[in-house]
Amino acid sequence: MNFTLSQIADLIDAELIGDGEVRIDGINALDSAKTGQISYLANSKYQKTLCNSQASAVILSSSHADSCPTNALIVSNPYHAFALVSHLFKQYNTAPNKSNEFSSIDSSAKVKGAIISSGCFVGKNVTIGKNSIIGPNCVIEDNVVIGDNAHFFANVVVHRGCQLGESCVISSGVVIGSEGFGNARCEDMSWKTIAHMGKVVIGNDVTIGANTTIDRGTIADTEIHNGVRLDNLIHIAHNVIIGENTAIAAKTGIAGSAVLGKRCMIGGMVGIVGHISIADDVVVNATSTVDKSVTRPGIYTGFFPLMTHKSWQKVGVWLIKLDKIAKILKIKLKDINK
Amino acid sequence: MNFTLSQIADLIDAELIGDGEVRIDGINALDSAKTGQISYLANSKYQKTLCNSQASAVILSSSHADSCPTNALIVSNPYHAFALVSHLFKQYNTAPNKSNEFSSIDSSAKVKGAIISSGCFVGKNVTIGKNSIIGPNCVIEDNVVIGDNAHFFANVVVHRGCQLGESCVISSGVVIGSEGFGNARCEDMSWKTIAHMGKVVIGNDVTIGANTTIDRGTIADTEIHNGVRLDNLIHIAHNVIIGENTAIAAKTGIAGSAVLGKRCMIGGMVGIVGHISIADDVVVNATSTVDKSVTRPGIYTGFFPLMTHKSWQKVGVWLIKLDKIAKILKIKLKDINK
Amino acid sequence: MNFTLSQIADLIDAELIGDGEVRIDGINALDSAKTGQISYLANSKYQKTLCNSQASAVILSSSHADSCPTNALIVSNPYHAFALVSHLFKQYNTAPNKSNEFSSIDSSAKVKGAIISSGCFVGKNVTIGKNSIIGPNCVIEDNVVIGDNAHFFANVVVHRGCQLGESCVISSGVVIGSEGFGNARCEDMSWKTIAHMGKVVIGNDVTIGANTTIDRGTIADTEIHNGVRLDNLIHIAHNVIIGENTAIAAKTGIAGSAVLGKRCMIGGMVGIVGHISIADDVVVNATSTVDKSVTRPGIYTGFFPLMTHKSWQKVGVWLIKLDKIAKILKIKLKDINK
Repeated sequence: MNFTLSQIADLIDAELIGDGEVRIDGINALDSAKTGQISYLANSKYQKTLCNSQASAVILSSSHADSCPTNALIVSNPYHAFALVSHLFKQYNTAPNKSNEFSSIDSSAKVKGAIISSGCFVGKNVTIGKNSIIGPNCVIEDNVVIGDNAHFFANVVVHRGCQLGESCVISSGVVIGSEGFGNARCEDMSWKTIAHMGKVVIGNDVTIGANTTIDRGTIADTEIHNGVRLDNLIHIAHNVIIGENTAIAAKTGIAGSAVLGKRCMIGGMVGIVGHISIADDVVVNATSTVDKSVTRPGIYTGFFPLMTHKSWQKVGVWLIKLDKIAKILKIKLKDINK
Repeated sequence: MNFTLSQIADLIDAELIGDGEVRIDGINALDSAKTGQISYLANSKYQKTLCNSQASAVILSSSHADSCPTNALIVSNPYHAFALVSHLFKQYNTAPNKSNEFSSIDSSAKVKGAIISSGCFVGKNVTIGKNSIIGPNCVIEDNVVIGDNAHFFANVVVHRGCQLGESCVISSGVVIGSEGFGNARCEDMSWKTIAHMGKVVIGNDVTIGANTTIDRGTIADTEIHNGVRLDNLIHIAHNVIIGENTAIAAKTGIAGSAVLGKRCMIGGMVGIVGHISIADDVVVNATSTVDKSVTRPGIYTGFFPLMTHKSWQKVGVWLIKLDKIAKILKIKLKDINK
Repeated sequence: MNFTLSQIADLIDAELIGDGEVRIDGINALDSAKTGQISYLANSKYQKTLCNSQASAVILSSSHADSCPTNALIVSNPYHAFALVSHLFKQYNTAPNKSNEFSSIDSSAKVKGAIISSGCFVGKNVTIGKNSIIGPNCVIEDNVVIGDNAHFFANVVVHRGCQLGESCVISSGVVIGSEGFGNARCEDMSWKTIAHMGKVVIGNDVTIGANTTIDRGTIADTEIHNGVRLDNLIHIAHNVIIGENTAIAAKTGIAGSAVLGKRCMIGGMVGIVGHISIADDVVVNATSTVDKSVTRPGIYTGFFPLMTHKSWQKVGVWLIKLDKIAKILKIKLKDINK
């Protein structure tokens, strides 16, 4: 697999400075790249490595063009251009050994034009769009609809009736449409499970990371809108709605009926409580707890700073007494807020 | 699937006001319900939507009966009644395309009366009770015992010798009986893994959410008692014991040998350290850390409040110096505690 | 399965005091052990249970030898000796019902000498070493290399090209080599996924807990070095490097390009941000956030202490005003730091 530099320039709409006929057969970091490989400079702090790079071409912005020791592709957003080029060399393991081997596919399923690997279960009235690839050991229950150009890795489960748009990429071990965590307490303090009748509805161009779980809605649906990016081991509870192009890092948990806006960036291991809403364009840093609605765009944080264990013990002693310290010092909240 | 309102009234032991012959074919929220659907009012803040609801019947408490514009079912706990009714309309995807297709079931397994879907592995001397349903691609290792009326979704793994009572609902991707995280340090600072000989023993009417993991005990067993509710992506370590009817929300982690009481409610993403105990009827709010035993019932919290990142930086500077501030101010702990 | 006490003494290099011919058929805690079982005393706080133990032999250090009521095996590290002995009685469920039943194994795979259970997918040019056991429903994609003596439980996925050394133990539901969470923002605020070309490279004697996910590198590889111990539901992002013999407890998340040293012990549910490094021999307590590099060995902590919810509300009011309180009190940072 190789391309001329001109072909790559066309793909990323770049100004080419140098030899368009040089052949590119891979992509690599500036300091590891060898002849035949293309690299990129997206962060000025790596500029030093540019001068000595052995890459056959570098994608960079015009401000670094003068320092480029080899063929240059000038673009306004080098990182985005790198993302585009990376797909030229991607190596998804798409082909099953033999199509449909040991797969149980109901005769009512409409899967023509899709590739289904071995060990899959495909239930009644399932629709899988053309050019979609379903990896080994996936389970697609009755009445699920999957759009064109989907890529499912291995061991994915989509429960009854859930819907995915076009071009979704679903990593291994993902569970879509599990029952929500709804329980009513009985008089004897035992729990009665609520049967969930909603679905999960996922838009176009959504990617979901490994072992992430998305519960179905109680009555209405759980919704993941177009262009959302979900990392690994995320939990999305019943009736959550995630707005377009919001990206959420690994291990974050979102409780029931929370509504997230568009273009948010939620860090890893963030906890978002239920029944709140987050505005568009909100950034929440990693490991924060969002325990109330966030109504304005901005960057938010809430985690305890790391210390030596000894310091933490000393600080903790006073932290848990802050209200009493204020009392001793005769500080009043109104003094502070004025 | 439809029922007369009288049939539903009988199921939930309700007082029926109106027409018992009206046919109900679904359940919906007050503001979305259409003719033929039943709804419920469990929270007074939704009372406004009651007046204009198009539902053919509403489950509610006697205090709201006067405001009901349609047929009413009067009960003392409408949310619990809704839970009961939801099961009339539930649509679990229970039927395999063809029973036992591509499933490897050892001839010594006792699975008569259970339904086993495709792609499953069932080992030696396994017992699965009657009316139990094992979804696609589940792995049930040697000597496992599963009671009657179990519902396993897809890709569940139960390791050797573990035991589940009756009527358990196990979501997709759950792993029961994985090895505990026990390692002894060697002189050269490498680790020697401890082989775990305990089991996981699970009571009746337990539900476990998607991709949750429960480790087996080191020597004694890990125990999940009757009526426990576990949400998605929870980790239960070796030798943990969880008391009856305790409910735990998603992403919580419980370290080795912790013992939780009965009827506790543990929020999402709570961290519970090992070798501690939590009393009956304790509530822990989401994202808290439980680093010591909790001996009294009550509501507990411990997470850093969310702020704008700028405020967090300003506050943090002082937080990590609290002990030194106390020193400057000449405040002593004994002044506070008196 | 049983052994003479002399055989066990040889295995753990112990001084035997008592009858070497007694037969041992199991291992148990001091207070539960019965005739024929061996126990151990690794923590002085359990010394009381030693006197009344019914065990036929006890592993302990010389300092407790005098109190031992039965045959004794004296060693310097009883917990480590227990770990060794536990493997005599381990009961991994290794045998498939029938080898290769319903498994799709490409003819180019080199798997001679390995045992592959039912329902597996093994892609092109895969190598699996001798005496390795692959449990049911595992998916091993093209070009993966797995060393000798590996033990894979069920439903493990290893994506294209990843490499594991010898004697690795991989728990059920683990995903190795999923795509990293790399996305470039486009002008219209949508995301372009970066195709990941790196692998995951795992050393010898690594154990990985259930449902843990390890992403492949963007260009360079994600690396897990020899002897690392990973618990359940951990997330390791793209290009992370974890040094030899580091142990990480359940539910911890490590963001992209973080580098951890050797012999670290990271508690459960710790969040480690990206692009930082942690020195050798660092201990981080559970549920802490590591938001900057840790350059010195030591014990570190950072979580909010648990309180009653009422206290937490009172303390929180003052916590979020700490900078303003300092201002009112006219305390300056330079006063504190001197």
